[in-house]
Order: sequence, then C-alpha cells, then structure tokens
Amino acid sequence: MMHPNGIKKTNIKMINYGNRGMALEEDINLSNEFYRLNDIAIIHKKPTPITITKVDYPSRLEAVIKEAYFKTPSTTDYNGIYKGRYIDFEAKETRCKNFPLANIHIHQLNHLRQIEKHNGIAFIIVRFSKLDETFVLIAYDLFNYLDNNTKKSIPYSYFKEKGFLLKNTFNPRLDYLKVIDKIYFGGNNEKRV
Amino acid sequence: MMHPNGIKKTNIKMINYGNRGMALEEDINLSNEFYRLNDIAIIHKKPTPITITKVDYPSRLEAVIKEAYFKTPSTTDYNGIYKGRYIDFEAKETRCKNFPLANIHIHQLNHLRQIEKHNGIAFIIVRFSKLDETFVLIAYDLFNYLDNNTKKSIPYSYFKEKGFLLKNTFNPRLDYLKVIDKIYFGGNNEKRV
Repeated sequence: MMHPNGIKKTNIKMINYGNRGMALEEDINLSNEFYRLNDIAIIHKKPTPITITKVDYPSRLEAVIKEAYFKTPSTTDYNGIYKGRYIDFEAKETRCKNFPLANIHIHQLNHLRQIEKHNGIAFIIVRFSKLDETFVLIAYDLFNYLDNNTKKSIPYSYFKEKGFLLKNTFNPRLDYLKVIDKIYFGGNNEKRV
Repeated sequence: MMHPNGIKKTNIKMINYGNRGMALEEDINLSNEFYRLNDIAIIHKKPTPITITKVDYPSRLEAVIKEAYFKTPSTTDYNGIYKGRYIDFEAKETRCKNFPLANIHIHQLNHLRQIEKHNGIAFIIVRFSKLDETFVLIAYDLFNYLDNNTKKSIPYSYFKEKGFLLKNTFNPRLDYLKVIDKIYFGGNNEKRV
C-alpha cells in the first residue's frame, strides 16, 4: 500500500499523540515531526526570538535566564527543505470571521516576499478556529491581494477562492505538503508552479 | 565595475561597522545582512532556543520573561535560500590547534546529514582563532571524515586539505557564498556539486 508521498505504508513511523493540545502550532509541529521521521521533508519551527538582559550562573554548568523580552520576529516561524526546494511559511489562527492583517508582522510579510522573489516556496497557513477550517494561501496570491487592497483584513471568501483547504488527518495531522505537491510539483492544478 | 556576484559596484549597499565586535558570529551576521541588502541571498541566524518557565505581565502590552533555560539546539544556527537552493550551516570558533567535535552538538550534525541527504547545501564554517583562519568544510567532506575516524577532533590539516579558506574582506565581511559558488554553482572545482 502506497502513501501519497510514495513511501510504503508499513514503513511509516506513527506519532502517538497522547494528551497533547490541538492548536494549529501543535498540529504543524506534529506534522513536521512526521515528515522528518519518514524522511519526507526537513522543516523546523524557529525558536521564539528574545532579547536576554540578565543571566545567572548558579553553578559552572548551569545558566538561568533571569530577565528577557520578546522580540518582534524578523522572519517567519517555519522553514526547511522539501524535495530539494527551500520552503518557508507562517501559520496563524484567528477567531475572527476574516483574517486580520494585524496578526502578521510586516517583517514577516517582507520576508515572505523576499523568499518568493528568490524562488522559494512561500505561503501562509491560516486557521479560522470558529469554522475549524485551515487554508494554505501561497505568497503569490497573498501579495496579489495585499498589493491591490487597502483593507485591514483578508476576507474569508478570498481564502475560499484562492486558498487550499487542508483536511485534518491522523498521520500527519495536517498534511500541508500534499497541497504543496499539487501547486509546485506537477499536480493537476491551474495555479502557477 | 562588476562585483563577483554580478551586481554593479555602485548599487552595493554598504554596512557601516562602527565599533562592533569581531567574532565569527558577528562577521557572519554582517555578511548575511550584506547579502540580504543586496538581494544576493536570504539567510538568517535562528534565535537561541530556550525554555520559558516564568513570564510576568507588568502591563497588558508588556511581557517580561523572569525565568528561562537554554535548550540544546536541534538544528544549526543558520539557514536560508541562495540561488533558489536551500542552504544550511553551523559556525564555530576554536582556540584549539584542531577542531574539537564537542563544539558541535550531535543533533546539529544529524541535522546537517539530513539536509545533505535532501539535496540542500550543507556545511560548517570553522575559525581557528589563534591563526585567524576561517574555513568552509562541506557536509560531504565533514561526514567523510567522521564516518572514517574515531578521533574527538578534526585535525587542522584536514581543513587545509579539504576545506576552503575564507578571506576577510570589507563588504561582505566574510564572503562565504563565493566559496559556495565555486563548489555548487559551476566554478572550476574538482569537488562534487
């Protein structure tokens, strides 16, 4: 039996979810773990950027950060390699009806634009929590909207029209690479490759 | 007048170094800034991974981390995109005669091996501080050594033989992409592409 990514079902390493949370970040981290374990893609979440202002050394080997501040991220949270290509994305969850642009820092948008320009695979993943619907919107369509609109949010309808709905599956939890396959690796899709 | 990377000298955005330090990390960060400013490559240093255990909220908008611990990194410090390719590396400085493997975490080595396997550009940059010599050693040669030796360090002579010496220049401070060009993008070099 073949997995959509071309690996034998019997060789697939499963992740036992236990009592872990169900938020989008968790879903993506688990999916990335699945992709790594099965050698499909190497994608990691970047650590949260902070500025450390005070560190204590209770012993020679141990350091305790005693004061630090959250920094505005200069890049997106996730990047890595898939089928030899550079891949980069940001993931956001909203309880609003439409997606508020305030949810993404301007640096992150600029970063995605640069990645797009350098021929990387760039996109955002947005979950509308109340509907429990999660979409991939590729950078091309994201910036097409942003460059032609002055609204402070991207309407849900735009995601319906241009985005790709992600199904919740078991392993991986959120198979966003399946959509990336369609768009960038020759699946039958009308959108640009 | 043309820059080696094919951009006109007059368009190059210069970085004013001021009184900044001279450590390897600083050199690489400045070089990455130069590459980004001139649209040559998008490469960032990842934030230091930490586990936050206590956060105070003195006001609604401000958060102060009051207790946190350094975590062992699961990936390398630097990654990004160059000429459409995924690029990933770790940078280390040593005052020793040879390069002690204790300087690189096993997770970081495993990560580089995975990147290599997925057809990314993977390497380490090592500076021998006492000699003020900085080398690029590509993952292929790194693992060729590690898989055939049980020593706890990589001899300086191996870097001389297999590595690529980086010259300190002004802008960028450490032009490691010049070496990557030679190895991966058809410069006349006998090593694998």
